[in-house]
This record gives sequence, C-alpha cells and structure tokens, in this order.
Amino acid sequence: MAALFFARSVLASDQGSPEMQHIARAIQEGAQAFMGRQYKTIALMAIAIAVILFAGYWMYGPTQPMALRVVFGFLVGAACSGISGYTGMFVSIRANLRTAAAARTSLTRSLQLALHGGAVTGLVVIGLALLGIGILFLLFGGLSQPQAVVYQLVGFGFGASLVALFAQLGGGIYTKAADVGADLVGKVEAGIPEDDPRNPAVIADLVGDNVGDCAGRGADIFESSAAESVGAMILGAALYPVFGIKGILFPLIVHAVNIVSSIIGVAVVGGKESDDPMHSLNRGYYVTSLLALAGFALGVHFLLDDRWWLLGAGVVGIITSFLFVSITEYYTETRYRPVRSIAEACQTGPATNIITGLAVGMETPALPVIVISAALLLSYYCGVRGLEDAAGISDYAKGIYGTAIATMGMLSSAAYILAMDTFGPITDNAGGIVEMSNQPHEVRDRTDRLDAAGNTTKALTKGYAIGSASLAAFLLFSAYLETIKEIVQRRVEGAGLHLPPGWDFSNINLAGIPVFVGALLGAMLTYIFSSMAIRAVGRAAEKVIEDVRAQFKENPGIMSGTSRPDYGRCVHIVTGAALKEMIMPGAIAVLMPVIIGVSFRHLSTRFHLKSSIDLPAGMAGIVNLSGAESVAAFLMVGTISGILLAMLMNNGGGAWDNAKKYIESGHYGGKGSDAHKAAVVGDTVGDPFKDTAGPSLHVLIKLLATVTLVLAPLFV
Amino acid sequence: MAALFFARSVLASDQGSPEMQHIARAIQEGAQAFMGRQYKTIALMAIAIAVILFAGYWMYGPTQPMALRVVFGFLVGAACSGISGYTGMFVSIRANLRTAAAARTSLTRSLQLALHGGAVTGLVVIGLALLGIGILFLLFGGLSQPQAVVYQLVGFGFGASLVALFAQLGGGIYTKAADVGADLVGKVEAGIPEDDPRNPAVIADLVGDNVGDCAGRGADIFESSAAESVGAMILGAALYPVFGIKGILFPLIVHAVNIVSSIIGVAVVGGKESDDPMHSLNRGYYVTSLLALAGFALGVHFLLDDRWWLLGAGVVGIITSFLFVSITEYYTETRYRPVRSIAEACQTGPATNIITGLAVGMETPALPVIVISAALLLSYYCGVRGLEDAAGISDYAKGIYGTAIATMGMLSSAAYILAMDTFGPITDNAGGIVEMSNQPHEVRDRTDRLDAAGNTTKALTKGYAIGSASLAAFLLFSAYLETIKEIVQRRVEGAGLHLPPGWDFSNINLAGIPVFVGALLGAMLTYIFSSMAIRAVGRAAEKVIEDVRAQFKENPGIMSGTSRPDYGRCVHIVTGAALKEMIMPGAIAVLMPVIIGVSFRHLSTRFHLKSSIDLPAGMAGIVNLSGAESVAAFLMVGTISGILLAMLMNNGGGAWDNAKKYIESGHYGGKGSDAHKAAVVGDTVGDPFKDTAGPSLHVLIKLLATVTLVLAPLFV
Repeated sequence: MAALFFARSVLASDQGSPEMQHIARAIQEGAQAFMGRQYKTIALMAIAIAVILFAGYWMYGPTQPMALRVVFGFLVGAACSGISGYTGMFVSIRANLRTAAAARTSLTRSLQLALHGGAVTGLVVIGLALLGIGILFLLFGGLSQPQAVVYQLVGFGFGASLVALFAQLGGGIYTKAADVGADLVGKVEAGIPEDDPRNPAVIADLVGDNVGDCAGRGADIFESSAAESVGAMILGAALYPVFGIKGILFPLIVHAVNIVSSIIGVAVVGGKESDDPMHSLNRGYYVTSLLALAGFALGVHFLLDDRWWLLGAGVVGIITSFLFVSITEYYTETRYRPVRSIAEACQTGPATNIITGLAVGMETPALPVIVISAALLLSYYCGVRGLEDAAGISDYAKGIYGTAIATMGMLSSAAYILAMDTFGPITDNAGGIVEMSNQPHEVRDRTDRLDAAGNTTKALTKGYAIGSASLAAFLLFSAYLETIKEIVQRRVEGAGLHLPPGWDFSNINLAGIPVFVGALLGAMLTYIFSSMAIRAVGRAAEKVIEDVRAQFKENPGIMSGTSRPDYGRCVHIVTGAALKEMIMPGAIAVLMPVIIGVSFRHLSTRFHLKSSIDLPAGMAGIVNLSGAESVAAFLMVGTISGILLAMLMNNGGGAWDNAKKYIESGHYGGKGSDAHKAAVVGDTVGDPFKDTAGPSLHVLIKLLATVTLVLAPLFV
Repeated sequence: MAALFFARSVLASDQGSPEMQHIARAIQEGAQAFMGRQYKTIALMAIAIAVILFAGYWMYGPTQPMALRVVFGFLVGAACSGISGYTGMFVSIRANLRTAAAARTSLTRSLQLALHGGAVTGLVVIGLALLGIGILFLLFGGLSQPQAVVYQLVGFGFGASLVALFAQLGGGIYTKAADVGADLVGKVEAGIPEDDPRNPAVIADLVGDNVGDCAGRGADIFESSAAESVGAMILGAALYPVFGIKGILFPLIVHAVNIVSSIIGVAVVGGKESDDPMHSLNRGYYVTSLLALAGFALGVHFLLDDRWWLLGAGVVGIITSFLFVSITEYYTETRYRPVRSIAEACQTGPATNIITGLAVGMETPALPVIVISAALLLSYYCGVRGLEDAAGISDYAKGIYGTAIATMGMLSSAAYILAMDTFGPITDNAGGIVEMSNQPHEVRDRTDRLDAAGNTTKALTKGYAIGSASLAAFLLFSAYLETIKEIVQRRVEGAGLHLPPGWDFSNINLAGIPVFVGALLGAMLTYIFSSMAIRAVGRAAEKVIEDVRAQFKENPGIMSGTSRPDYGRCVHIVTGAALKEMIMPGAIAVLMPVIIGVSFRHLSTRFHLKSSIDLPAGMAGIVNLSGAESVAAFLMVGTISGILLAMLMNNGGGAWDNAKKYIESGHYGGKGSDAHKAAVVGDTVGDPFKDTAGPSLHVLIKLLATVTLVLAPLFV
C-alpha cells in the first residue's frame, strides 16, 4: 500500500519536456526489452531446474509431498525474486524522467522523487519476501506443525537466489559492457563527451544503469531477506521448546517492522535547497535505524518473553550495519587516505595507480572481517545469556540463535537501504536525460549534485550488502548443518534405529580428504566465477564497440549531428551478448556443489574415505556422510573466499572511481593531465570489478548456501 | 661433497675481462652488504623469538627438557635456513661472472656453468635439511624413542620457516623496488635503456636478482623440505606399529636419494651449441625424475616392506610435479592462449590489458586445484591399499601417510628444480654484465638465449614451489591435528585419566564461532599480507627514484658518460628500505596465529564458547580446545586462500611479463607501439605480484603451519 502511494507520487509528477520524454522512452523500451528477454531465459532455466529438482527429490528425497512443496516453494521464490527485480527496473525507468523534470525547478523535490522511486523498490522487495514466506508457511500448515514446515521453505530461498544470480550477472554484464563499450569507442576513439546523443551506445549505457543496478540489487536484497528469514526460521525451530511458534515467526515480524520504519525514514527526507543531499539521506537512515530498534524491542517484548539480551543481539546487528557503511565510506571517499593515495600514485602513471589500487583493495577486507568476527562473538554471547535459563537447549543452539537475531538486526533497515541504493541509478539516468536534452546550466548542476550523492549511496549500500550477505551466509551455513542432522535423524529413525543422544553432524574432520578437497574447490569456484564474469564484460563490450564503429561508418551523418544513430540496434546487441554470457558462470555455480556432494557420496566407499563422523554400528549402511561433509567445507570456504574477493573488488573499484573524480576536481593537474589519463585506466579496470564480479559474488555466496540447503537430501 | 665439486668447477672457471670483473665485484659487494645487514636483523629477531618461545614453553609447556629441545631445534633450523639462503646468493654472485665470461666462447659451457652454480645451491639446501634433521633426531635420542622425538623436531621447521619468510620478503621487496625504481627513472624519465651503466640504480637491480630470487627461493625450498620431512615423520610415527623406525626415517632417505639423482641430472645437461637451452634443461629434469622414481622403489623395497601401493603414492607425487610445471607453462608461455589473449588486449590500451591479465590470473587456480584434489584422493587411496593388512591403524592414518609419501614424491626432484631456478638469476646477471661491459654482439646473443631460458625456468619452478607448498601444507595441517591430539592425551594421562578409545581432535564443529572466526581471519591474513608486501615495494621504489633523481642533479657528468654514478649509495638506500619494510608483514604473520589461539583459549570460558569436541566429564577442566580449534580453521582457510592468491599473482604476473615479450618480438606493432606501452603497464603491475607477494605467500603458508605446530601446547 505504501509502495503504491510512493509509486503514485512518483508517477503523478511532471514528466518534463517532449525531448526529455523521448529519451526516457528510449531507455524504457531498451530496459523492458532486455528484462523481457532476460526473464524469459531465466524462467526457462528455472522450470528446467524445477523439473530436475522434483525428479531428484522424488528419487532420493524423503517423502513425495515434501518434494512437491520444495518445488512449489522454489517456483514461488523464483517468481517473487523476478517481480522484485522487475519492479526495481519498472519504477526507476519512470522515476528518472520525473526526477530530471523536477530538477528544472527544485533540488529537494528532485531528491524526494528519486528517493520515492527507490522506496517503491525497497518496499516491494521486502514486502514480497515477507508475503511469500508467510503465505507458504500458512499454506504448508505451518501453524499446526511449524517445526517440520520450516525445512520445506528452503525451496523459496533457492528460487529467490537462482533468479537473483542470473538477474545480477546478466544485468551486471549488460551495464558494464555498455558502459565500457560506449566510453572506449565514444570518449577515446571518437572524442565525444560522455552521454553525448551522437554515440549510438549511449542509450544502452543508460539502460544498463537500470537493469544492472536497480534490478540486480533488488533481486540481491530480496534474496538476502528471503534466505535470512528461512535460515532464521530453521534455527528458531531448534528453540521450539522455549518460544513455541513465536520464535519461528520472529524473523517475519522484524521484516514487517522494517517496512514501517523505512516508510517513515523515507518520508522525513527533505530539507532546504542548499542542504547537502547526503545529509538528508543520512538523516532518513538514522530515523529508520532508530525506529527499527524500537520495533525490535517490541518484538522482544511480545514474542521473546522480554529476554533483553536478545535485543542486545539485534543492536549488535544494527551497529554492524553502521560500521560496514562507515568502513566502505573510509575506503571509497575522496576525503580519506586510501583514495588519496591512489590519486597520488596516478602521478607516476597507470601502473602505479593499478598497483596502489590493488593494494588498497586487498587491505579492505581487514576491518570488515574484524567487525564480523566481533559481531558473531557478541551476538553469540547475547544469545547464550538471553536464553540462560532455557533447559534442554545446548549453549550452541542458543548462541547461534543470537547470531540469527543479529542478522535480522542488520537487515532491519534493508528497505531504506535499498531505496538509497536505487536512488543512485535514478539520479544517474536523470543526469543523462538532462544532458541529452540540452537543459540549462543550473539544471545540470542540480542533477550533478544528486548524481554525486547517488554514487556515494551506491558504494555505501554495496558495503551494507556484503556485510549482510556475510552474516546471512553464516546463518545459512548453520542451517545447512542443522538440516543434515535432521535428515540423518529421519533416515535413521525410518530404519527403526535411534541416534545416540547429543549426536551432531557438525563435527567434521578438517583434515579429511573430502573436507579439504571440498574446501579447495569452494575457494576455487569464487576465483573462476569472478574470472568468467570479468571476461564476459570484455567480450560483450567488444560487440558494442564493433557495432558503434559500424554505425559511424554506415551513417556519417551521426557524427555531424544531422541524423540520429540507431540506439535500438546497440541495445539489442548488448542484450543478446549479456544473456549469452550469463549462462556459463551461473551454471557452474549451481552445478558445482551438486557434483561435489553427489560424487563424494559415491566415491567415498570406493576410495575408503569413510566419513570421520562417528555413527553407531549398523547405521553406516543407512547414511553416508562424506558428501555432506565435503559440501559443508565447500560452502564454508567458498563463502569466506567469496566475501573477501567481493570486498576487494567492490572497494578497490570504488576507490579507483573516486580517485579519478578527485583528480577531475582539480588535483594533480586535473582533467586532461597525465595523472588523469592514468586514473581513467584504474577506473576502467574497476568497472567490471565493482559492478559485475563483486555484486555477483554477493549473490553467489547466498546461492551456494540455498542450493546446498535444498539439495541436502541428495548428499546423504 | 658433490656441492663442493660443482662449486670448484664454477669457481675455477675463467673470470673474463677486468671490466666484467669490476661490475661483478660491485654486484657482489652490494649483495653481501644487503645479506649481511639482513641476516643481522633476522638473527636478532630469531633470538628474541627463541627467548619468548623458551619462556612460553617453560610456563605452559609439558616438560622443561622438551622446551630446551624445541628452542635448540629452532635455532639450528634458523641457522641452516640462513646458510641455505646465503649459499644461494654466494654462489650465484660468483657464477654470474663466470657464465658471462664463458658466453664469450661457448653457449654450452656457459649453460653448464650457470646450472652448476644453481646445483650448488640446490644440493646445499637439500643436504642441510637432511643433515639438520638427521643430527637433531640422533641428538635427541631418536633411535631409542623415535615416537616422542619426532614431536620435538618441530622447532627446526619453525626456525627454517621464520628465516625463509624474512629472507623471501626482504629479498623480494629489495629486488622489485630496485627493478621498478631503476626502470621508472631510467627507461621512462631519462630515456636510457635497461642495464645502462649510467643508471645509478642498475647495480642495485642486479643485486636484487641475487638476494631476491636466489636467496629467497633457496630459503623457500629449504623450508619446504624441512617442514615436509618433520611433518612426514610425525605422521610416520602414527604408523610405528607397522614399520617401526623405518617409516619415520623414510622421508630422510628419500631426500638422500634426491641428492644423488639431482647430481646425475645436472651432470647430463650439455648438448650441442645449437640446441635450445630449455631442451637440455628439461632432459636433466626427466633424468632426475626417473632416478628419483628408482630410488623411491628401492626405499619401498628396503624400508616399507615391499608395499608397492605406497610406491604408487610416490608416483602420484612425481606426476603432480610434472602437471604443475605444465600448467604453469600453459599459463605463462607465449605459445598458448592465455598470454596471447593478454597481448591482444594490449591493443585497446592498458585498462583492457590489466582486466584480461587479472581474469587470466583468477582462472589459473582452477586446474592446479583439480590436480591437487586428484593427487590427495589418489595418494590417500594408495595409502589405504598399501597398508590394508596393518591391524590397529585407522584407515585415516593409512591414507594420510599415503598423502605424505606423495608430498615426498613431489619434493624428490627439489634439488634439481632449485638448480634450474637459480639458473635464472645467474643468467640474468650474466646478461647484465655482458651488456654493461660492452661485449660483442654474438656474446650478447648467447646470454640472451640463456636469459630467455632462465625466465622460463624461473616461472616454471615457481609453479613447482606452490604445488609442493600446497601438499606440504596439507601434510603439516594433518601433523598439527595429530600434535594437538598427542598433547591432549599427555595432559589427560598426566591427570590420571584416560581418553575414550577412538577419540580424535580433528572433529571440529565447522559452524562454531571460534572455527568460523578463525577461518575468516586466516583468509584475511593472506590479503592483508599481500597488500603490505605490494605497498612495501612501492614505498621502497620511491626512495630509489628519489636518489637517482638526486644523483642525476648533483652530478650532470653521469648522463653524459664522463663520470660514474654512485652505485653503492643506491644499494645502501634500497637495503635500508627493504629491511624496514619486511618487519611489519613478517610480524603479523607470526603473531596472528598466536593471538588467535591464546585469546580464544581464554575467551571461550567467558563467552560460553565451549568447544564442540566431546570430552568425557571431568576432562573439561584439564584441556580447553577452543583455541586449538580456532587455529586449525585459521590454518586451513589461510592456507587455501594463500595458495589461490599466490597462483593468481605468480601466473598473472608471469603472463603479463611474457605478453610484453610477445609484443616485443614483433606482434601488434612491436616495441614502441601503443600496444607495447600498454603491455609495459601490465608488466610493471605484475612485478611485485610475481616476485614479492606471490613467493612470500608460499613461505607464509608454511610458516603458519610450523608456527602453529610449535606453539600448539599454548593453545590447549
């Protein structure tokens, strides 16, 4: 409802001059054409996977109704994830025009419109996650047997992740291929400025901002919320004796609170014309966080029996999100040492620029890792203290529930963060529309200020996204171990036997071959995936360059400004290239855990790789844990390696980008100097890092977690 | 003895013209001055650590005699590692001049001299590892109670690793700072060619080849051999009931065989003047490998009771080393797709060159990881099959012994590989001497051919080094888990209790907070360490540039060729800078595992982080395993992340280097073209990757393993 309100407020606004509308329509058409084709491809793959999943569950799985439910959840999750991405794009390709139009009169109005556009995405995304899981939970009979039903929700998370991965990969490849292609052939070869209407790739570039940033991040945060909810519900089920169904529903309530607090946060953003847009946006963030905290306290009061230590865990999560945003700020803002050191290195040429940028990038994981470690420790402690008097629950289960609550705390401002994030591409597009429609100087000034704020929010929200992904991945990893335990229990009891008390799956021989090999392969996947994503951008960009060159040659009127280039052809070409390139890395990510789990399960007997986990005599014939063990290590090390690589790429890329901006603002010779040329090289290298490979890695680590969660029965 | 023979053969050779000798003497003086100061610094640190180690063992450790032995072993190991590094440098700074002199008449003679120079290093290194461990083993009474003594040898490995780390770091920073500094200020600013005598940094650059490549790699391989021997002996002790002392001594015998086979391998290298030097070198490698195999077979016959499956494990190791060399070849040779794709990308400028190079770099871990995985699986299988009839030994212990034998197989050609490796810097230096002393054209041609072969061997042996480091790290990791188990057993029995049968330390709760946090921190260490190493090169290079600029300004006669620059001043400056810069990354590497292990041990009670490992009631007060668990995960993930990062850097750097050479050989416009300029950027970026950070990571992962092995008693 609130989303509809914001949507109406955006759509009802002035659409500006006919020329602006003309450009905006071209962007809309391109984006819709890409998204249409992309979702058709993804839908086909999702259906194929659903069929295989169903067959796999039917053959290996526990019971047929469970198979149906998992597959049904998968399809619902995939659909919701798709809608989330589509909404992001749908609103932003309309909000951009209105933002541009409003910039003709007022900065504040323009700022509000862009943020409202973002808010629609944020609210729809979080609302869909909440609704989808809530409805599935009710539908599967969650109110009568909640403990069993939570395990059947995993399909939803998998569906969400799968679509998110392809949306982010395809969009990320699209946006950077168009950007790099347009820049190389326009700025470098033809010598025309950025966003010049004579460049045939310029519309593709603007389309890319929408399909890559809006749609990609929408699907990404949707996935985080959905996966986190499912994971937290599984861990909540372990505390059923304490809280009953209330502990299981707590994650959903937190998301509901999140929606309300984000609406208020968005509403308070405004202020005077002369204010720094970043100040207004930050004010909204603080308001949202404070309200989220209040909502958390209410949740603890009503659902968690006034166990205030658990609120402490939530506070840890909220503080963690602040710290992640601040650390990202430190590494990517021109005010601080890292970006300045890169800018300084540009004076001695591109090589020293790249070396310094990579060194900064490799330094970036240090602080976030310390923050995550501290957050896990503290929230674990809060969990144990908060549940001190709960009998019959292990300290471990209590502590892990604490970390789950911290993850919820971190995600409790997700809708607002997403609004801020989508703000970025909307203002970027608005700037492009203003530039292409030759608006007066002061209008361009306004959109430039918004655009600068948008670049900052885009970078900061990426820090938030990787932080929440790390915590969510830890949560899902714990949920995976819990799920395997549940499966083993069910199988063993099905054979009329009983597990010894205190038996746990999680104790794994670290030096066992399946574990070490799984771990090696997990880390390797993140490298090869990044490599493929980066190469994909290069290949797709090449096609753009070829087409632009061809257009300049076929139609010399373009350069002289007498005839319009064929924007659609460029859009069409980069669409096809991006869709083709997203298949391989996506397929590897989905298939590798399956292959490892199933093959170690089968190899283990032949290679005498008895699992190190003690099972009482007689049970070894019923369950074989080598596959599950290997996948656990694969997941753990893949996640850690993915987190660090993503930080390296996101922050390194962001720092290069801003080092260039710092030089452009007049330092070390300013625009056109040799230092600037060197900075441009760093910026170009950073582009596929920060907008394709990095964000795709966020999605990848959650996909790995959900795919293993869903396929767990196949590994045992 | 054989080493002495080769040394005499090198030293007795013709030393060439007085001018050549003059240059060579400058290199010798610089290298000796650096090594002298470096080893003084390292010695001080080693003594400080020995004191702390002794105090720590005395307070926490099991028994005082053990404390003395570990510390004594540490000092011996450190001394031997230092001698290994020093020998490498000592011989190569003499062999370079003789190689240059011989190049005036014969390519074959020149090739042989360079290889013989390298062989001295190789033989001394492996010989010292063998002697050091052998003598300590005898001294500690290994013949009477071998099972207990193997645990007291860990100090030797730690001492070796510590010195190796600082030698490699300091040398790596030195060599690249001098190289980058000399290039930037010479080629780019002053426009004089490489190795031009007017460049004041040119001698520092040549010195760098010796202290970085020869001394660094010598210490690196010494560490691999020493650590691998100790690790394999600890695992061999677990098989004491089967083989007795023979299983423990087997690793030492393999190294002895290695020495003999490498001597013969070096001796057969020769051939006609027109032969490709690489062919001759490869022939030697094949001969060495075949002889090593024969030696292995004899060892299995005499020591391991004709269990031929164990020979199979050795063969797996030998094949693994071939595959690693071949994969490295594929990624770094101009004949294959990866380097060509980078060269092609140079056409569109430095940015696409960097992007493609990084994408290639990230792709490189894939095949090696698959090879390591297969090697571990197969050798584990061989171990289990070979020891099928051994009663009372778990399948796990049998399989792990199989992987230990594969590691020995891989290291069984280490001496020859090291000879090939040292060949590189010797020929590089010889080329420099020939160039600076203005020799005729055909002499320069001969050294150029040798230099090209030397570049190839340097790259290939780096692949070998990381491969053997991976296997050795896995071995040491298993040895760490075994050591913790032994400590727990001793403590529990000291308190009059008994562990339940089949109790094992290795079963670790992967989702436990200490484990996950340890794992995160392990991966983080590899990033921050690389970042620091890379930055160190930049900072030290800056000092070189400043000095060269100052020299050109103070003494204008240098550029006109009328007066000689002050080479010594440059050498002095880069020496000081490199030594200063090596402290921080080295200290972090040593301290981090200690801090993690000790603090989790103490934190665990306060934070309710009970270790997940089941201990019978009553024992929890005696041992606390959280610290040991956390360090295990730290070690495992740090190792894996380090291996992959090192591969990325080594191969990425090597590929950039050769892409530049490919363009220089006339493709895409050749020397001076825009593509060439772009290629130079990639080459410069790759320099600190492949010669500082990458090789230092090899050493780091082994240091982490040995430091945790030595400090294990402090974590429990």
